[in-house]
Amino acid sequence: MNILTVIENKKNKQELSLEEIKYVVNGFVAGQIPDYQMSAFLMAVLLNGMSIEETINLTDVMIKSGDTLDLSFLNSKIVDKHSTGGVGDKTTLIVAPIVASLGVKVFKMSGRGLGHTGGTIDKLEAIKGFKTTIDKKDLLKQIENIGICIAAQTASLAPADKKIYALRDVTGTTNSIPLIASSIMSKKIAGGADYIVLDVKVGNGALMKNEQDARLLADYILKIGKHYNKKVVCLLTNMNEPLGNSVGNGLEVLESIDLLKNKGPKDLKEIVLALASQMVHYGLDISLDEAYIKCQESLENQKALQKFEELVKWQGGDISKIAVSDKVVSLKSPKTGFITDIDTLKIGLLAKELGAGRMKENEKIDYGVGLVLNKKVGDYVTEGEELVKIYMNEKDLPLQEVVSCFTIDTDKIDKRNLIIDILSN
Amino acid sequence: MNILTVIENKKNKQELSLEEIKYVVNGFVAGQIPDYQMSAFLMAVLLNGMSIEETINLTDVMIKSGDTLDLSFLNSKIVDKHSTGGVGDKTTLIVAPIVASLGVKVFKMSGRGLGHTGGTIDKLEAIKGFKTTIDKKDLLKQIENIGICIAAQTASLAPADKKIYALRDVTGTTNSIPLIASSIMSKKIAGGADYIVLDVKVGNGALMKNEQDARLLADYILKIGKHYNKKVVCLLTNMNEPLGNSVGNGLEVLESIDLLKNKGPKDLKEIVLALASQMVHYGLDISLDEAYIKCQESLENQKALQKFEELVKWQGGDISKIAVSDKVVSLKSPKTGFITDIDTLKIGLLAKELGAGRMKENEKIDYGVGLVLNKKVGDYVTEGEELVKIYMNEKDLPLQEVVSCFTIDTDKIDKRNLIIDILSN
Repeated sequence: MNILTVIENKKNKQELSLEEIKYVVNGFVAGQIPDYQMSAFLMAVLLNGMSIEETINLTDVMIKSGDTLDLSFLNSKIVDKHSTGGVGDKTTLIVAPIVASLGVKVFKMSGRGLGHTGGTIDKLEAIKGFKTTIDKKDLLKQIENIGICIAAQTASLAPADKKIYALRDVTGTTNSIPLIASSIMSKKIAGGADYIVLDVKVGNGALMKNEQDARLLADYILKIGKHYNKKVVCLLTNMNEPLGNSVGNGLEVLESIDLLKNKGPKDLKEIVLALASQMVHYGLDISLDEAYIKCQESLENQKALQKFEELVKWQGGDISKIAVSDKVVSLKSPKTGFITDIDTLKIGLLAKELGAGRMKENEKIDYGVGLVLNKKVGDYVTEGEELVKIYMNEKDLPLQEVVSCFTIDTDKIDKRNLIIDILSN
Repeated sequence: MNILTVIENKKNKQELSLEEIKYVVNGFVAGQIPDYQMSAFLMAVLLNGMSIEETINLTDVMIKSGDTLDLSFLNSKIVDKHSTGGVGDKTTLIVAPIVASLGVKVFKMSGRGLGHTGGTIDKLEAIKGFKTTIDKKDLLKQIENIGICIAAQTASLAPADKKIYALRDVTGTTNSIPLIASSIMSKKIAGGADYIVLDVKVGNGALMKNEQDARLLADYILKIGKHYNKKVVCLLTNMNEPLGNSVGNGLEVLESIDLLKNKGPKDLKEIVLALASQMVHYGLDISLDEAYIKCQESLENQKALQKFEELVKWQGGDISKIAVSDKVVSLKSPKTGFITDIDTLKIGLLAKELGAGRMKENEKIDYGVGLVLNKKVGDYVTEGEELVKIYMNEKDLPLQEVVSCFTIDTDKIDKRNLIIDILSN
């Protein structure tokens, strides 16, 4: 077997065998297949697709590329959540502490920024001192002690996925259904989760631009879950505007703390409660309605906030020191009317250009930069009123391009449904 | 502008602007765009295509990435030939000396092996001492003195193409019509040719598998030629079996010398004369028929052979020392019948596996290995009669796979037309 033959087969839309998938993934991990061949392979997969069977095989090879975590000693169900990534999606920072505050153990292995979307790990690192690389022994101890841990993918769990994910991010090969599905599920399964809640984002700011693709992704994920006997729930949620108001690592941490104080944007709260209640429903084996009420209470009585503070402290962070740039530019609306559309992808890319995301693998990012939207879809704005604040640092932005992300019209449009559907296996 | 946006646009089948093409190509040449991003971009181009206009822009950017050669001081028309590459295609080694022996100046800038096909430069390097890297001053002097020069693409002419070509070879991104057309034409135009004869191979051993693709490639090439006011002739020729009998660098040089002695395989001779006479027709401004006769004479009176010997000597080679392995295995036919098909691509790949071609950029190749076919399509073979000889060295081959390249049937089939069509702009 050689890599060129496998690339050729995928180029010609052939279904790859388990042996071929093993050859590529293990060869790449071992350094025998260089980045430039792997990225050509990934682009061929992105453009020509993979069947469910190929995707299950890919998932399996990635799981077997490393250790799997056995959390059974905790004598507790392990629930996990994941988002396919959107602009301003900081739900993990709020959902995980809510769920943990209610006594359900959460071990969340998170990623870094991918494409135009941020990553939970990057966001947490905006908190001074916050350690995201935790070895296996320590993370097991942490879960046992405080019932929550959010860590970067360890080198030992699904290392193949980690290496492929980093390459995808910088080669335009992120938005592939089989690659997304196998990446998510290999991490979740290697991480020992029993129950997985997935937030599948749909819209102009998501990897999945339309409902059809989102449903296909959910279908792949549910089938992989079934193959491994894991209960999986997929929420299809709207990503036609940033979630909440802030985009950028430190800014999103601040907004998350706001929500944990039971303040903060309504849309963010709606999705947070929907995700958290699914996790609590299963984790505590109570009805979904009961779970919902408990989650709300956890925000109201600040138990979730306390859990978040406990998490930050345990992982070495200083919650009083969150990176936010002090060079702020306020952009005004050029006209009066209703916001009818926000180019969310562009907002994400502009945040990346500011330094909030990576252009190349291993590039340093700027935790303090980003955007805070003062207006969202459906809002009324008057000429000269603030539309958005830009937190900048070393890199500049073409300001007119930021303004052009907002479509302003005279006719009001209705707010869209945030939660489109809930699917499970 | 950033590379991910350009990759994204091509992924989404958008037509790239001149600015975007400049950004990618110049960024790659300058080392700002790493190999792994470029290979993802190239795979997206391969799978989603490029318009004629994009391809002309790509050609132009590649030409402008380096010097162009001004050969006008020679006061002579400069003719050039090129093959899109096939298995066993050693025509340049014979055509160039024929044409030069008739007083037409030939400067041939050649490539190394690409995909499963060999490259003229690799073949010439099988001759001990033969130098293929020649600086501009020396090659001009050589053309002036002996009227012929075959050199590797110099670093200064179309350097962008050189770098992209090397990456395509190892990332499965060779068989793309716009990439092939721009690669060929950027070299030809930078090399100062006035008249270009192109051998567009069609069949199971060629980059273009079917006539439709070959005609499309010819169309791109003719249009690029027209854009630069260059006369271009494309011969569409059959590559459903290796050309001649030998495949492998040293072995192909030996076969070429045989033909220069007016011996050697008929099919090779037919194509050689067709290509050479086109070049002489224009170079000497005589009719095609007259040119054909002159080319034949040059083989008969060994003027072409003498020119080849002059070329080898001038470029430092010792024609008595041609690399050929002495570890030879003879494979016999498993049955009696007619050869109805030869899997030419597989023959090419097997030669590569023996060491005749590269699996990775900058890999060393073995000049002495290869295959010599004793039977071709349409030939009769009896059980136990020799089908093919394998010249091996360090690497082994699964012998049964070599035999399986030959389809043997009871019904005779006719030899196919070697020259399918001749097109010009």
